[in-house]
Amino acid sequence: MTLLTDFGGADGYVGAMKGVIHRLAPGTTVVDLAHDVPRHDVAHAAWVLATAAWEFPAGTIHVAVVDPGVGGARTEVVVAARGHLFVAPDNGVLGHVAGAAEGTWAITSTAFRQPGASPTFHGRDVFAPAAAALARGLPPTLAGPATCLTAALPWAGPGAIVHIDVFGNLISDVACAPGARGQVTIAGHRLPLVRTYEDVAPGEPLAYVGSAGTVEIAVRDRDAARVLGIARGEPLEVALE
Amino acid sequence: MTLLTDFGGADGYVGAMKGVIHRLAPGTTVVDLAHDVPRHDVAHAAWVLATAAWEFPAGTIHVAVVDPGVGGARTEVVVAARGHLFVAPDNGVLGHVAGAAEGTWAITSTAFRQPGASPTFHGRDVFAPAAAALARGLPPTLAGPATCLTAALPWAGPGAIVHIDVFGNLISDVACAPGARGQVTIAGHRLPLVRTYEDVAPGEPLAYVGSAGTVEIAVRDRDAARVLGIARGEPLEVALE
Amino acid sequence: MTLLTDFGGADGYVGAMKGVIHRLAPGTTVVDLAHDVPRHDVAHAAWVLATAAWEFPAGTIHVAVVDPGVGGARTEVVVAARGHLFVAPDNGVLGHVAGAAEGTWAITSTAFRQPGASPTFHGRDVFAPAAAALARGLPPTLAGPATCLTAALPWAGPGAIVHIDVFGNLISDVACAPGARGQVTIAGHRLPLVRTYEDVAPGEPLAYVGSAGTVEIAVRDRDAARVLGIARGEPLEVALE
Repeated sequence: MTLLTDFGGADGYVGAMKGVIHRLAPGTTVVDLAHDVPRHDVAHAAWVLATAAWEFPAGTIHVAVVDPGVGGARTEVVVAARGHLFVAPDNGVLGHVAGAAEGTWAITSTAFRQPGASPTFHGRDVFAPAAAALARGLPPTLAGPATCLTAALPWAGPGAIVHIDVFGNLISDVACAPGARGQVTIAGHRLPLVRTYEDVAPGEPLAYVGSAGTVEIAVRDRDAARVLGIARGEPLEVALE
Repeated sequence: MTLLTDFGGADGYVGAMKGVIHRLAPGTTVVDLAHDVPRHDVAHAAWVLATAAWEFPAGTIHVAVVDPGVGGARTEVVVAARGHLFVAPDNGVLGHVAGAAEGTWAITSTAFRQPGASPTFHGRDVFAPAAAALARGLPPTLAGPATCLTAALPWAGPGAIVHIDVFGNLISDVACAPGARGQVTIAGHRLPLVRTYEDVAPGEPLAYVGSAGTVEIAVRDRDAARVLGIARGEPLEVALE
Repeated sequence: MTLLTDFGGADGYVGAMKGVIHRLAPGTTVVDLAHDVPRHDVAHAAWVLATAAWEFPAGTIHVAVVDPGVGGARTEVVVAARGHLFVAPDNGVLGHVAGAAEGTWAITSTAFRQPGASPTFHGRDVFAPAAAALARGLPPTLAGPATCLTAALPWAGPGAIVHIDVFGNLISDVACAPGARGQVTIAGHRLPLVRTYEDVAPGEPLAYVGSAGTVEIAVRDRDAARVLGIARGEPLEVALE
């Protein structure tokens, strides 16, 4: 089971979720994906989840809790996709895996959520118990009625920067074959599409096909987002040779 | 076993503790609670520990190392409480679980601490070996002589903000039943006591009964500590309807 | 198996590596050493690795990925040392353990790396598969041809500050017996060599033999790097009594 949150490393929220999982599903292997997602940044978390989750073996349960609307109108769901199970609020955090969804269920059963759940901490009282129920072998069909994912990511794509990583690299949703060559235009910059960082001099900008199979923009040994002054959502154009 | 420290994620200190535990008690499941506790902030860590530890199954060993006085006058202890074991310095980090303490022992036995322990890294040389000894099944009575917890938290409570979390939410020690309604007064602000964030408009302040069962103050989609300019220790008054 | 990176806690890179390991070597215990190493700071990571790795039991596999030159000229290696195995780029990150190396092999075999590895994410496509191969029991001699570590750390040592930790403590590479007394001179400051922090008043500077067995400089309850204005690489002199 994997955990992804914006709870950070200074509070007890991640620990409380782990405690519930270890208490309700003893022996579960719990893997931290990332807990320093920018606070309330659902779209950031959606990308992180999509680039890590599929590397895990089939059968893995992924819990994603970036949930500014906790206790409000958005629902809580279990999604089955390509042999993996996802447990999350329906607020867009599953936006990059939604295309693979083979089934979606609302989490309403008392076997999947704590009665009297705190309206401000569904991580502990809904998502952790639901994930523990799945880890104990309960099928997702017992979570509650079949439903649909309704939340969308904040861009229509493809053709834009959808994620900025810790290095300041600008990651787009433009899929491209490894080894492609050409030119990328973004925010008035015209960049060579090369293989890797060392193909340009230190401090020089470059484009390359990144580890997610999409076009990325970097500045060698620098923070491209800062150096180029580009934010998420910026459109780009890719011209292959 | 859980680990809670202020060692952060950039140094080898947490890793060294894990190494000792895996070496001395092979097969132990080690769970990170939080390692980004503000440096030397014993009171912060005390709250984090209390809000996460009890979620774990009975029998869990919790190691808490936020220890500005390492190597000095404060002692090292094992505490038994409600079927859990806590390993920590006696400096207040156990302040929120101390009320449940059923036994306290000083860590003096050579089976529980490394001879020639570094006076600046008891996490590696005292607390990790002590926790490993407990994980191997040694009873806490073998750690050393029975003693008492002496350190107190820096407030007399209840009736004040005792914790500020990563979202900037202001958490008090005023216990309150879920669903309570009324008014909360803090620092000249008069706030409605509601159920959850979406009960007010974005940017509006609110009070609610938080996941710890105490009154909390937030500003929807904002950082309440910054917006309201309130620090830990601020008193508050709760008037129920 | 341990993981050490500069990938931080906001992205999917650490999670992707863990996914590969759990997929290729099911049942492996994966331990986070540290992921908030300053970005691209190979020398920092080298110290963290050396102060944590040896605490683990013999047979542990350590994966260290701080790799600004990924996809470029530096090679990928497996190193055997004192019964431990290290998987890393040959860029200096193994600089503090290199002296104990008993064997070094390039990672070229398809059993140890993914064919068509992304030139920008060897953590996922080379180092994680190599570590998983070792975890499954393949000997390092199957990784590829025997080779030598070529990268050096950026200082000749000993006699300088080689690491600054999260508390701002200044850690040197001057080995010293525990309990030594004397004087330390650094950047015009003359400090007493004492046992631990409480041997001086709050706010006062001190030197002591730290947990790595080398001389360290601190300011009690303060950040010595900031207070004293000293950076990594600063030389120091130790005069014992």
